[in-house]
Amino acid sequence: MQIVEDLIRLLGKDAVLTGKDCAPWSQDWTGGYMWTPLAVVRPRTTQEVSETLKLTYANDVAVVPVGGNTGLTGATVAEGAIMVSLDRMTKIEALSTDAQTVTVQAGVVLERLHEAAEDAGLFFPMTFGARGSARIGGMLATNAGGSNVLRYGNSRDLCLGIEAVLPDGRIVNLLSGLHKDNSGLALKHLFVGSEGTLGIITRATLKLVPRPKARATAMVAAKSLPDALKLLRRLQAETGGQVEAFEYMPRLFMTMHMAHFQDATEPFDAPHDVNLLVEVAATSDRDSTPDDTGVTPIASLLEDTLFSLLHGGEILDAVVAQTEAQRRSMWARREAAAEITFARTPYIDSDIAVPLDKVAAFLDAAQAAVAAIDPGAETLVVSHLGDGNIHHTVYPTRTDPGVKDAVKEAVEKVTLAFGGSFSAEHGIGLSKRASMARQKDPVALETMRAVKAALDPKGLMNPGKVLPD
Amino acid sequence: MQIVEDLIRLLGKDAVLTGKDCAPWSQDWTGGYMWTPLAVVRPRTTQEVSETLKLTYANDVAVVPVGGNTGLTGATVAEGAIMVSLDRMTKIEALSTDAQTVTVQAGVVLERLHEAAEDAGLFFPMTFGARGSARIGGMLATNAGGSNVLRYGNSRDLCLGIEAVLPDGRIVNLLSGLHKDNSGLALKHLFVGSEGTLGIITRATLKLVPRPKARATAMVAAKSLPDALKLLRRLQAETGGQVEAFEYMPRLFMTMHMAHFQDATEPFDAPHDVNLLVEVAATSDRDSTPDDTGVTPIASLLEDTLFSLLHGGEILDAVVAQTEAQRRSMWARREAAAEITFARTPYIDSDIAVPLDKVAAFLDAAQAAVAAIDPGAETLVVSHLGDGNIHHTVYPTRTDPGVKDAVKEAVEKVTLAFGGSFSAEHGIGLSKRASMARQKDPVALETMRAVKAALDPKGLMNPGKVLPD
Repeated sequence: MQIVEDLIRLLGKDAVLTGKDCAPWSQDWTGGYMWTPLAVVRPRTTQEVSETLKLTYANDVAVVPVGGNTGLTGATVAEGAIMVSLDRMTKIEALSTDAQTVTVQAGVVLERLHEAAEDAGLFFPMTFGARGSARIGGMLATNAGGSNVLRYGNSRDLCLGIEAVLPDGRIVNLLSGLHKDNSGLALKHLFVGSEGTLGIITRATLKLVPRPKARATAMVAAKSLPDALKLLRRLQAETGGQVEAFEYMPRLFMTMHMAHFQDATEPFDAPHDVNLLVEVAATSDRDSTPDDTGVTPIASLLEDTLFSLLHGGEILDAVVAQTEAQRRSMWARREAAAEITFARTPYIDSDIAVPLDKVAAFLDAAQAAVAAIDPGAETLVVSHLGDGNIHHTVYPTRTDPGVKDAVKEAVEKVTLAFGGSFSAEHGIGLSKRASMARQKDPVALETMRAVKAALDPKGLMNPGKVLPD
Repeated sequence: MQIVEDLIRLLGKDAVLTGKDCAPWSQDWTGGYMWTPLAVVRPRTTQEVSETLKLTYANDVAVVPVGGNTGLTGATVAEGAIMVSLDRMTKIEALSTDAQTVTVQAGVVLERLHEAAEDAGLFFPMTFGARGSARIGGMLATNAGGSNVLRYGNSRDLCLGIEAVLPDGRIVNLLSGLHKDNSGLALKHLFVGSEGTLGIITRATLKLVPRPKARATAMVAAKSLPDALKLLRRLQAETGGQVEAFEYMPRLFMTMHMAHFQDATEPFDAPHDVNLLVEVAATSDRDSTPDDTGVTPIASLLEDTLFSLLHGGEILDAVVAQTEAQRRSMWARREAAAEITFARTPYIDSDIAVPLDKVAAFLDAAQAAVAAIDPGAETLVVSHLGDGNIHHTVYPTRTDPGVKDAVKEAVEKVTLAFGGSFSAEHGIGLSKRASMARQKDPVALETMRAVKAALDPKGLMNPGKVLPD
């Protein structure tokens, strides 16, 4: 192909992969999507991204940007398209401890950024299971969430500024280390979460925060989800908002987890239905300096609060991690969610958010709606409960072809009825375009299409993603 | 005019003001802008806003939305246009203490929302001088900032969802009480901060937070601005991030304040150059329950920290408010900033943000740049120092016509050289369009124009604002 030859001439042979060399970029990590790209271009600089896009634009060739390729929605499917991989743009360009900001190229792996922040005595709080592979550009393009959103916000909230390359190769400089910048339309926010449909994010300035000096982690069994929400409020009140994670795992999660891992155990002496992973984190010396017995005040506070709730009958059981190993094991259980979820097939998964006070009612209604279609179906839930975010997976017993769509639509309808969203943190990609068509406000869809057409008039950037036809 | 008669027929006579009745909507509060609108329409519902805009759109009539009309940049100038005032859409529709959210019509006055949150035992943290008149729609349309941004973020960060009416009258429903919602382009963020150029915000769902149960407030004299930044980091570390405000007032602020208010006094026994208003706020019982002497732990913590810093020679002086009256008086001095700034004329004011670690160097460089134009000019600074946000006012001694533009451009250039923004929290409106043209990234301007044309193809929504010609 002429375009591939032109790209090789432009960037050099080592920057343009074709044929078998494209294999790592030819499927997503679930294996659910496979494709054959025309070539994978691996630019080293923003300028090279810009030159690449000038060429593809002039030749009307579709472009799919890719970071760590760890998404779950098929957003990097690139059949016959040029993929632009950011994996060689991995410079951490500037880190200011005084301003508590860091500027990076978009190909930096999330875990590398964690380490760089830690080395500087600071903390980059965005984290999720794929942190060892996911890259900052993809994290921003999908507005990734995770377990710390409760305290620190999502990727969007941690992003002070970006640089991006538009579909025609122009570079738009929205880099900023500022906490306030009201100078015109919020273009940064348009690119964040756009899943590569408006351009390619090439650099970003991100917020860093003080590094927690001590953490305290517990598993808690609550009587019900409304009681769990009360527990969250109580812990926030006692700690002055230092709750960093509040994760919900129901009974089925526990049994599937123990079936999957031979040496896994129940978190409590008796099995419970509402199992919560709770973590609080202290940044102050006051709360993090251990006493004579080695216990930190934040850990005492968590322990005292849980003891008092247990004593008052407000929770059913609680176990506070006494060692880092115990803490790691509590987290390992939670972080095995994707693995155990997708090990059982067939599955019908949704990534849902509802208002915090609607989670329990939503789950009941969704259960009923699924049972009406397939009475034998089981539903696995794991939830960032503090954000109202529910990873909801149905295992159908019926195998006829219509069941998947019927279940998906039924769950969506219940979601909408509770004021929720059918996509909380995973994005739309290819896999949720039908949901967008069915459930999103029609005027919102028209407005998105107008913005897309304005910024990408030829429709070359990650075509066929996010917006339904 | 036919359009006015049509609007009266549509909404009733009491909803359409003309002639002298428009007086309250015919100038901004500084008196710097005056105009004559065609009429002021006062709809009661989103539906009425929609019908109004369908009519203006069909007749190619310009529309200017207005909330409390408390802006500082001429964003509501409406010569010959139809103004749409949200002042009758003042319903607080739903407040959930469990979800900690509130849904309001856009005409709710900020101070009413403060009261409603307080009544529910919660807190809406956005606050600024004009809170008694400013309305939520305008607060969001300008992405208002203020003194609490340091802890709680700006208006954008507190907004979970909006409803807006597009220029042609279509209603776009982006209302959401969700903390995570990745379903397509971030249209909400496009309307927030767009200053009425893309449509009219009619409703919003906002975050509430736990109400601080105790506050501790102090005036602190630091040796330098870098020392002030160290003080902020120290206070954040000691309190675990409970610093709510960190405001800087230099010497000239003190002398102008005392000249303006006869009974005003110095905050310290001796005059100092770097005067800081510091406030910490506790939401936990642990930090807010007074001891036998009536002192709260958060106040002790602030006092102990300041005492230790004073003892170590790291600050020059400190006074902790012992009563609510003393606290109010510390805040009254800071909140008089606009009044004392604009009482002296002529003035050349800028609302600037720079990265936190660049404030001192920026102020020195700006001082030198201004002195090169007008050696006798004085510069008044008041700053939300914790956000890097500087309200910068130059009082020139030269009166020749070019001096204002020369000073403005010189200050802008220094701002940009330090990676700053010429508009931090006040927005662009009319008054900063020239700065947009001079200083904003050209590709960003082109992209904003493309978005504006896509959403408002006839150019009828708040025409002539934000984007330069």
